[in-house]
Amino acid sequence: MTFSSTLLENAVNEFARLPGIGKKTALRLALYLIKQPEAEALQFGETINRMRKEIKFCSNCLNVSDTELCNICSNSMRQKHLLCVVENIRDVIAIENTQQFNGLYHVLGGIISPLDGVGPDQLSIDALVERVKKEEVQEIIFALNPNIQGDTTIYYIGRKLKGIPVKITTIARGIAFGGELEYADEMTLAKSISNRIPIENYIEAKN
Amino acid sequence: MTFSSTLLENAVNEFARLPGIGKKTALRLALYLIKQPEAEALQFGETINRMRKEIKFCSNCLNVSDTELCNICSNSMRQKHLLCVVENIRDVIAIENTQQFNGLYHVLGGIISPLDGVGPDQLSIDALVERVKKEEVQEIIFALNPNIQGDTTIYYIGRKLKGIPVKITTIARGIAFGGELEYADEMTLAKSISNRIPIENYIEAKN
Repeated sequence: MTFSSTLLENAVNEFARLPGIGKKTALRLALYLIKQPEAEALQFGETINRMRKEIKFCSNCLNVSDTELCNICSNSMRQKHLLCVVENIRDVIAIENTQQFNGLYHVLGGIISPLDGVGPDQLSIDALVERVKKEEVQEIIFALNPNIQGDTTIYYIGRKLKGIPVKITTIARGIAFGGELEYADEMTLAKSISNRIPIENYIEAKN
Repeated sequence: MTFSSTLLENAVNEFARLPGIGKKTALRLALYLIKQPEAEALQFGETINRMRKEIKFCSNCLNVSDTELCNICSNSMRQKHLLCVVENIRDVIAIENTQQFNGLYHVLGGIISPLDGVGPDQLSIDALVERVKKEEVQEIIFALNPNIQGDTTIYYIGRKLKGIPVKITTIARGIAFGGELEYADEMTLAKSISNRIPIENYIEAKN
């Protein structure tokens, strides 16, 4: 692209460095900001930079936070003895959006994946084991993506927790609500049969 | 969306105000910047804000510019007597990318469109007429989008220029290169027939 302005060119390049933003979209975004009132456009950059400078990771669960302890961990209404283990911050937001979980989280910061060079040491697994011991956690729910890496991570952490009296569960894998049996892959269908649930539980869950 | 951090929430809202960016994409972009090294992430916001604060509009052609006069208008290698009239900055970039035009531009800042409430007074039409008179322009090429609004704008400006000895042309409308006749709309096909070009010109243009 040929630009008559280096200022514009630099801004377009910055936008285009973001994931999923190509050059043409980057140009559209930069020109949009040029047309906005100056105060509003400057607020954009300042808000982004303020976030980057001031954001913290909760010292307890490693979720993003404005304060030392995030507002989920510091909320006295939430069950301290129930821990949901997730891969990343996005998963915390997804589960919070369901409004169905009232415990605390533990963000691993990734998932064991030797092919991508991610081993257990890069994840907050030791911190998780410490928390379980110290905070008298009664149940850990693994909410990891249903794939080989997720299962490996669950298996590895499960072994680390051996001997500690804590109930370990995982979110159900099965046919998605609204999904169709004939289009489900064999693995999912097989697991949904072997992990079948008593009809009473199913009806209970629906009410 | 439920956020555990107001800093993150504000950043997501800022991204989501941009055109074509939804909440989920905004979250992805904000989290990407959180994971980047601080210096690189801060550079993002600072580059955008610097652009917004310092960018100017060329006093001659109204294109975006770092300086009072843009680097196209101040380039002594370009033909001063050939003017390409475009709707907006994006069109300047599109034409510059072809590397086929060596004159100057005039950015109207829009197109006459009564339905959208855009009249001639909101566009830089008077400035264009002034330029044509003052700078002894020999040819004006209209490079406007081929639709009713574009044609109205050409007609309106054409009338304003009456009596001034300047050649007025418009970029060719026709079947796009690589396009197929049978899928072209009737209007385009009709225009491409009525504006047919001598074979010598066509062969010349291809070489």
